[in-house]
Amino acid sequence: MDHKIVGKSTQRLDAVAKVTGRAMYTDDFFERDMLVGKVLRSPHAHARVLRIDAAKAKALPGVVAVLTPADLPKIKFATAGHPWSLDPGHRDVEDRLILTEKARFVGDAIAAVVAEDLLIAEKALHLIEVEYEVLPHVLTAEDAMQEGAPLLHENRPGNIVSSFGVQFGDVEAEFQAADLVFEGDYETSIVQHCHIESMSAYAFVDSDGRVVVNSSTQIPHIVRRIVAQALGLSWGRVKVIKPYIGGGFGNKQDVVVEPLAAAMSLAAGGRPVRYCMTREEVFIDTRTRHGMKLHLKTALTQDGTLKGIHMQVLSNTGAYASHGHSIAMSAGGKFRPLYDFRAIKYEPKTVYTNLPVAGAMRGYGTPQIFFALESHLDDIARKLELDPIELRRKNLIKLGHQDPLTKNVVRSFGIPECIEKGKELIHWEEKKQAHKGQTGHLRRGLGMALFAYASGTHPVALELAGARIVMNQDGSVTLQVGATEIGQGSDTVFAQITAETLGLPVDMVHVVTTQDTDITPFDSGAYASRQTFVTGIAVRKAALEVRQKVLEVATRRTGLAVAEMDIRDRMIVETSLGRTVCSLEDVAMDSYYDRLLAAPITSDTSANVRINAMSYGATFVEVEVDTQTGRVEVTELWNIHDSGTIINPKLAEGQVHGGVSMSLGAALLEQMLFDPLTGKPLNPNLLDYKLPTVLDTPKINAAFVETFDAAGTFGSKSLGECPTISPAPAVRNAVLDATGVAFHKIPLYPQVVFEKFREAGLLAERSVQHV
Amino acid sequence: MDHKIVGKSTQRLDAVAKVTGRAMYTDDFFERDMLVGKVLRSPHAHARVLRIDAAKAKALPGVVAVLTPADLPKIKFATAGHPWSLDPGHRDVEDRLILTEKARFVGDAIAAVVAEDLLIAEKALHLIEVEYEVLPHVLTAEDAMQEGAPLLHENRPGNIVSSFGVQFGDVEAEFQAADLVFEGDYETSIVQHCHIESMSAYAFVDSDGRVVVNSSTQIPHIVRRIVAQALGLSWGRVKVIKPYIGGGFGNKQDVVVEPLAAAMSLAAGGRPVRYCMTREEVFIDTRTRHGMKLHLKTALTQDGTLKGIHMQVLSNTGAYASHGHSIAMSAGGKFRPLYDFRAIKYEPKTVYTNLPVAGAMRGYGTPQIFFALESHLDDIARKLELDPIELRRKNLIKLGHQDPLTKNVVRSFGIPECIEKGKELIHWEEKKQAHKGQTGHLRRGLGMALFAYASGTHPVALELAGARIVMNQDGSVTLQVGATEIGQGSDTVFAQITAETLGLPVDMVHVVTTQDTDITPFDSGAYASRQTFVTGIAVRKAALEVRQKVLEVATRRTGLAVAEMDIRDRMIVETSLGRTVCSLEDVAMDSYYDRLLAAPITSDTSANVRINAMSYGATFVEVEVDTQTGRVEVTELWNIHDSGTIINPKLAEGQVHGGVSMSLGAALLEQMLFDPLTGKPLNPNLLDYKLPTVLDTPKINAAFVETFDAAGTFGSKSLGECPTISPAPAVRNAVLDATGVAFHKIPLYPQVVFEKFREAGLLAERSVQHV
Repeated sequence: MDHKIVGKSTQRLDAVAKVTGRAMYTDDFFERDMLVGKVLRSPHAHARVLRIDAAKAKALPGVVAVLTPADLPKIKFATAGHPWSLDPGHRDVEDRLILTEKARFVGDAIAAVVAEDLLIAEKALHLIEVEYEVLPHVLTAEDAMQEGAPLLHENRPGNIVSSFGVQFGDVEAEFQAADLVFEGDYETSIVQHCHIESMSAYAFVDSDGRVVVNSSTQIPHIVRRIVAQALGLSWGRVKVIKPYIGGGFGNKQDVVVEPLAAAMSLAAGGRPVRYCMTREEVFIDTRTRHGMKLHLKTALTQDGTLKGIHMQVLSNTGAYASHGHSIAMSAGGKFRPLYDFRAIKYEPKTVYTNLPVAGAMRGYGTPQIFFALESHLDDIARKLELDPIELRRKNLIKLGHQDPLTKNVVRSFGIPECIEKGKELIHWEEKKQAHKGQTGHLRRGLGMALFAYASGTHPVALELAGARIVMNQDGSVTLQVGATEIGQGSDTVFAQITAETLGLPVDMVHVVTTQDTDITPFDSGAYASRQTFVTGIAVRKAALEVRQKVLEVATRRTGLAVAEMDIRDRMIVETSLGRTVCSLEDVAMDSYYDRLLAAPITSDTSANVRINAMSYGATFVEVEVDTQTGRVEVTELWNIHDSGTIINPKLAEGQVHGGVSMSLGAALLEQMLFDPLTGKPLNPNLLDYKLPTVLDTPKINAAFVETFDAAGTFGSKSLGECPTISPAPAVRNAVLDATGVAFHKIPLYPQVVFEKFREAGLLAERSVQHV
Repeated sequence: MDHKIVGKSTQRLDAVAKVTGRAMYTDDFFERDMLVGKVLRSPHAHARVLRIDAAKAKALPGVVAVLTPADLPKIKFATAGHPWSLDPGHRDVEDRLILTEKARFVGDAIAAVVAEDLLIAEKALHLIEVEYEVLPHVLTAEDAMQEGAPLLHENRPGNIVSSFGVQFGDVEAEFQAADLVFEGDYETSIVQHCHIESMSAYAFVDSDGRVVVNSSTQIPHIVRRIVAQALGLSWGRVKVIKPYIGGGFGNKQDVVVEPLAAAMSLAAGGRPVRYCMTREEVFIDTRTRHGMKLHLKTALTQDGTLKGIHMQVLSNTGAYASHGHSIAMSAGGKFRPLYDFRAIKYEPKTVYTNLPVAGAMRGYGTPQIFFALESHLDDIARKLELDPIELRRKNLIKLGHQDPLTKNVVRSFGIPECIEKGKELIHWEEKKQAHKGQTGHLRRGLGMALFAYASGTHPVALELAGARIVMNQDGSVTLQVGATEIGQGSDTVFAQITAETLGLPVDMVHVVTTQDTDITPFDSGAYASRQTFVTGIAVRKAALEVRQKVLEVATRRTGLAVAEMDIRDRMIVETSLGRTVCSLEDVAMDSYYDRLLAAPITSDTSANVRINAMSYGATFVEVEVDTQTGRVEVTELWNIHDSGTIINPKLAEGQVHGGVSMSLGAALLEQMLFDPLTGKPLNPNLLDYKLPTVLDTPKINAAFVETFDAAGTFGSKSLGECPTISPAPAVRNAVLDATGVAFHKIPLYPQVVFEKFREAGLLAERSVQHV
């Protein structure tokens, strides 16, 4: 299609605001009489609070309020940022209170202080006396499932949050009939999002008695609901504002700080209270990515045709459910529209343990699943002496594939081209040749991995998005969406969709970037890679409605039927003649000032998007492994994406850079460590937690195979989370290729690699060779 | 009709915000790096600027920019806050620049400074050297119309801005045929609005390069246009925010400080610049109420039947047109739907002089016209020895009257009842008896006067109003309007209209009180007593649309046709049975979360209101005149209003209190004084300008005759400006009644009264009597 704006690398709308420091984040706002809130956290991984004595803390000058569980409503609520469901069976697990009388992990919030300043608040925390009854704790899913394991939530029959899996076909029959059955175990570690901006919110009670929360969140409309639920308020009595935010990656798709911030303000007579977490608090008491243990058992024919797979997943969700149940279930569905298994049995167990809470993080469990699956496929290929690429290629689904469970249809499938392009770009064959017969302690290897991902959550959850457009007198428009710009560039993409539809330059589309639940159209927010796909449909719908109205007003000037006209470059054009008949500004002015017919052109619409589109892609990577030190270096990396039409190549490339970097961190460096005896976090800070810096990050190359998906706006599909999925298994496969050593757990940090090499006898051999 | 909310004295929505100091006004906001702007003003009433040397000012440390006319676009613009007209013949007079090269009054803006703080800015003003060529000036309309008078605006043929009048019938024939012809001259003085909050705005250039203006204005959407016009920007490149405002009374229906504030920011590289006027600047360089001289010539029959009137008006508009042309024209139309003249010739002349600019002020010229007419009718009654009330009653129009010029139809006419009620409430007959044969220097008298006023400006100008309603999940709604709450209580009235329509308590209607032209629906703003009438129609339309959608969603639960249901007390009711079928919250939740049909219930609508409704009323007053000191004291006052259905009695009463107080100020105390030689203002401050304080203000009594006008929402008509019209002539007529002395000019301040009494011989007589 011939687009003027879509497909162009329009500059981000927020570029200037962000580089000049004009962008205002939650912590940049200040309210008169603002107070500070701080939290007292449990030093024990599992302990009952027997007594809290806050008298000394309350007596400290400058302390305005001390909150304990006794001061708060006893309403259990869920924090996961999902749309509400009218079906109680589809709701998130309501398993927590704002402050708890039973600590379930080291750092669980027991009490809170509201004070005039931070110093007083910190001091007051030390003055609160808490008497605990320390309970035995469990840190691993396996232990938590043991008979007689300490029970985290008394009202539940055990520590399993959810074991909701899916299956189709007869997997046992496939194993029976198979030429070969392979099994493998894989494991991923607990990692953290490490968004630059901390979790932060402030709340106050406005002069109407409503609770106003300003928060760094991906999901303002959901925060509104959950704050109301947690406090027992009518939902309309809460208002949430989301200003610019400094990253979220799913951590801010959870309602973590807002209910407590609101409770703090209510305890302080409605005065504004800021509750901003330190980095350590972010590590401990926000959300993590689930560490998973996966057992894969695969049936196939001698020639490498995949027949059936049984995937067992053990997902450690920490002390509260958050997204846990949903992640394990959702992530298992993503490989089905990639590989054409005849039978699948997907058996996840999400288990409570006395660790920090795991929740949503870019990829939503899919990186763990694909780490296992794509490692497994390479292990199979190696065993069968098949080319791992050919093994995959042979088993791909076909265009038009319909998932037997979700009923989602694959309307575009660029994987074959992604593979071709990846091989070509990394010079796969040439490098394969060059690597042959390598000697020395530095060994190069090639690896690749595929992935599939969805665009939004249909049909699992509701996909509702709102968009509002108002045309100004000069023909420029203002666009409001409930979808949130969280750094991914969604505002820019929405502006491009609007501009393309209305024949406007992008700088004539003004996007209101702050969401305010009183003002902004409803939208569930930024997650599930849904913004361009789901909200894009709403924005396009609103823009088309405005276009229709513009042309209807133009008929008054031109006499031409709406169908005979188009808007091009701010002009109304008679399509068949290519003749300009009047300007868009003329029409806009008529809409405002025609004495008889004035009615400003606006659209206020919503889209309930009941379709999905699968995105695909591949990572191709070359690594150099130092067998003496265990250091793995990525020497070349290509991520090739089929995300349908790319609305903004530069922003798309940015998404790939960020996502790949996150996956490389998980593959090579990152993991949260806990003392196995006490459950205490060992590295809850950016010094000890090894987040890759720019110096640790290789050049990341992005390429796109542009397909057209009929479900998406201008053919587009999701991209946001996609790049985070396949790099880790590709790196792991490249290490296997380089060294013959199959790692089954990430991260491949030097110590682990070194030890495994020693076990494999690689090290002795080398030291002999080189000493 | 049976209303639950309409007609009740709901508490103002902003009551708590205002009494607790939480309401944020323009000056309460602060932007990082904010600068201060100050203006250099002409010391001459009329002078050409030959040279400006800003070098020394620019060199002063802390000065960021100095603006002179040479630095600004040479685009003449109009400041009057009217909707734009597509017809160039209907536009306001474009006669000014942001800074002028020719001073046309003492205080005209010549140059401006932008500096780090106020002190530096003030210092810098003194360092700007200006060389003037002083020109002869004129201060009165008569002088300005003289042959050879100094011309204020070179591109115009003379100093008359406009002489657009109207006539119908043959007024000369009526004079010929009349039994009697009376003539009288009347005069009003220049007064000022004296809103508590000064004129203030700040502007900055946002990261998109758009100009953002935060302003204390009644008309944010018009400010946007005029700032853009003055600076030669595309209208969509300007954004205007109106927070809480501390009164306007029409002065802020003019775009006074905003273009310069924007220019200051542009000169300072887009940094935020605040331009807040001192009280003296408000007196000198905002707007005033036109001083008018009126000559009335009336034909009537022996029995007091009014036949024809010729009204000549000389309106002194000062140095720039502002609203001048429109006011003189508009005000002359208001008495036509009150008294049934067969012929009217209305001949206004609006004239430039070298005085501060006159503009819109509560009543928009009507107080001047009715002061003359109602004084004139009492003069006639006195001459004919008729009862002044009977004279009026005899000549009233009838219900259904259609104005021959505007074609507006009188659909409700409560004047006869207002007269009855007023007489009764003030005990007219009893007091008349009691006053008979008074002696001594304290004399009591009774006076009354009538008025008529319109609701909005139809058919003179466009009446377009927007309203947007979003229903929350709990059934509460958020309402956004472009109409502006300026203290009159419009937000509360809109909430009542919405609540009544949707079966909600008022506290479930959340009104967004800040207008932001990027976000808020379009509306021309607060003037012409149009908010309840015009915007009320838009709000009602939006609420009805929401109601319709609610009932449509309800049909999914109930199966009942929309017409069979109603919303009552947050419940959906089957009307015929009075049976509750489900809750409004159920419906709202369905609208958000129904998997198949989710679509939040919203309305985003506008109303182009092409109808008008006349409001009416009367003042009845008793005064006590001290003939020795000239002091006039109002001892009892009743304002009786026919404003149709009263939506909120308490707020309506508040409007009457404020309006009457303003009229009493004009009647007895207030006037701006100028040195006749230099044109310099003599009392531009609240010490020397005698604004009545609460100690000067009598108890003001309000009463209502509630009619139902089919044109207005729930039968309502305008009220905002109405109370400001009839008190002044009623007081003047009461003084006439008390003393027999007919005053023809207001204010009746003691010195004037004293002197006139001496002329009339009253004083001598008394002093003899009492010494």
